[in-house]
This record gives sequence, C-alpha cells and structure tokens, in this order.
Amino acid sequence: MKDGPLQHLIQKFTGLPGLGNRSARRIVLHLLSQRERTMVPLAQLILKVAEEIKDCNICGNLDMHDPCAICQDTRRSRKEICVVSQVSDLWAIERTSAYKGQYHVLGGVLSALDGVGPDQLNLNSLMARARDGAVEEVIIALSATVDGQSTAHYVSDMLEGCGVSVSHLAHGVPVGGELDYLDDGTITTALRSRK
Amino acid sequence: MKDGPLQHLIQKFTGLPGLGNRSARRIVLHLLSQRERTMVPLAQLILKVAEEIKDCNICGNLDMHDPCAICQDTRRSRKEICVVSQVSDLWAIERTSAYKGQYHVLGGVLSALDGVGPDQLNLNSLMARARDGAVEEVIIALSATVDGQSTAHYVSDMLEGCGVSVSHLAHGVPVGGELDYLDDGTITTALRSRK
Repeated sequence: MKDGPLQHLIQKFTGLPGLGNRSARRIVLHLLSQRERTMVPLAQLILKVAEEIKDCNICGNLDMHDPCAICQDTRRSRKEICVVSQVSDLWAIERTSAYKGQYHVLGGVLSALDGVGPDQLNLNSLMARARDGAVEEVIIALSATVDGQSTAHYVSDMLEGCGVSVSHLAHGVPVGGELDYLDDGTITTALRSRK
Repeated sequence: MKDGPLQHLIQKFTGLPGLGNRSARRIVLHLLSQRERTMVPLAQLILKVAEEIKDCNICGNLDMHDPCAICQDTRRSRKEICVVSQVSDLWAIERTSAYKGQYHVLGGVLSALDGVGPDQLNLNSLMARARDGAVEEVIIALSATVDGQSTAHYVSDMLEGCGVSVSHLAHGVPVGGELDYLDDGTITTALRSRK
C-alpha cells in the first residue's frame, strides 16, 4: 500500500503549491469517490490543457493560440506595454478592464535568494519590442516587494535610451483601506506622493 | 479566454476540497510551467489510479486488489472489526501500527443536515460480517463530533443481539495536550472516565 499508485498520487498532489500532505489526501479521496464524474474528466482536461495551451511568443501570455488573443486583438493599443511578473498578474489587470494595451510577462522577478538572474527572465524580447518604434510607453506593474521593486529598477535602467517613457504603478492607500490598519511604509509613500 | 479549457481547468480545481479560486489558479499556472515534468505525469497517474484502485467489497477500503491487502492478510486477527467513517481514518489508525484486526469503512456518518441516512452507509455488510461467527468484538472508531457520536450510538444499537461485544475509542486528554488549552467537555469526560 505504501508504494502503490495511490500513495504516489498523494505525493504528486503534495508537491503542488499550497497543498500539504493532509489536503492532498483529502483531494485524492474526494476524486476517488467521484471517479466517473470528476476524476477521469479532470485528468483528461489536464492533458488537453497541457497540449493545447501555448506560451505566446510575443508577450509570454498563456493562450490556445500563438500569438495570444491579446497580442492579436487589433482594437488594443500598440503604444503601451505593461510589464508583469507572471500570467496571474496579467489576469488580475485584465479583470479590471482598465487597461487596453499590450503586455509582457517576465516569467518571474530577479531574486538573489532564489538564484533568479536577468538571463532567466524574458528581458531580451522586451528590449526588442521597446525598440521597434510603435511603443511609446512601458508600464512596469511588478509587485511592491523588495524583489519586485529591484526588478522594476533593473528594467527601467535597461530601457533607458530605447526612446520609450517608463512608468510605474502608483503606490499608496489601497481603495477601501483603513489608515489605521496600514503599515508605516505605505502611509509614508502615500504622504510623499500626495497630489 | 474566459471560456477556454484553461479557465475550465481552474474551475475544476476550484471544486476540489480545500481549494479556492486563487489557489486553483496558482496550481494550474505551476502545472503549466512544468508541463512535461509534472503536468502530464500527474494526469496519467490520476487516470491510472482511477482505473486500478478498487473499493474492497468486504470492508470498503481502497486498494489495488479486491479484497484489499488488509482483508487478505492472514496474519491479522479476524476477531476484531474496527468501524471507521472513511478511508483516511483507516489510514490514520494504520499509521499507528497499534491495531492488527479487520476494518469496516462506513463511507460517512449519519447527518440530518447533509441528508445522510442509514441507507447511504455500508451498514448491512457490517451486520452480515458481525453475524458470521468469527467476529468477537466491534470497535467503533468514529470522530467525537455530534454526527460521529450519534452514528456510533446507531451502530451499537444495531449490533445488539449479534453476539459481539461493542467497544468505543476512549475519550480524554490527548497525549501531549495541556489541560489549560482543552475545552470543558473534554476535561469533564476525562474526569468522569478517570481510572
């Protein structure tokens, strides 16, 4: 039993982000209780997604087509590129419907601790896109963490001399946020950036 | 994008126990970043487990064989049956190596709220096993929740007249537990059951 496929499957699930051994066991037992309705369709869908979803060669987004629907959409502006760390950040910005330009997914942020250097990120393709003439502005939308901000600095340094203006997401009080619950750094930044 | 297989897969993961929309997204993006190494093998393993793992017809355990390895093991005593709610409880008891008898998995507990009645549980097969003469003791190992304990009462009432003795897991202070942090019910039970 200990070396069977069941334990092996639980181990595989335990390796996924956010899942421990106990939650992996719960998921596998749940799947086994609904083999035909949930378990087999889930596996088939995973195989289908693994085969059909492609990385967009232009921006790094995930889609069924390459280039992706956003890069192909002629109604979207070609003048702005929004630089994000990962596809889930792109989805978060798309959910707002507040941005109608192009994207560029870096595939991570620079991190000395995790050993992520500039070579592991999609920086060369970003340089090529910024230089091609159509782009006027690069919006850097990286997380406000130490690694995110040092990557933002690196990217804006790199883009100097490409003839594009570089902007960053504003820092400040989140909409709906109570001042009393905010950390000192956010309040200080919001004060300094007051307008 | 919103109706594509990618969103569909995230929805499928969101339906699994313990996973919300955000954790499902993280898992799917993680899988897509390791298609060959993690994603495809995971799907293949899910299909393999769905096909190879069977419900044991005697006790309700999950195993590659039917009857399961525990029911087939001639070194295990046939005199005791330990009644558990689900397979994960059986695994929890097996991990202790403290029990060397047979099991019986009910497949849940009676619950008025969730609409689980006696017909949905493997009670008839338990009666048949308890009556077959070889069994001397039925150990009821259900959770100490309201539903678990009412199921325990129901099962022990049902087994009356089958010629087996019925026992329950002891209630009391958990090993390593500090009295100060225990609820009143547990302390009261531990006091009443002192020996």
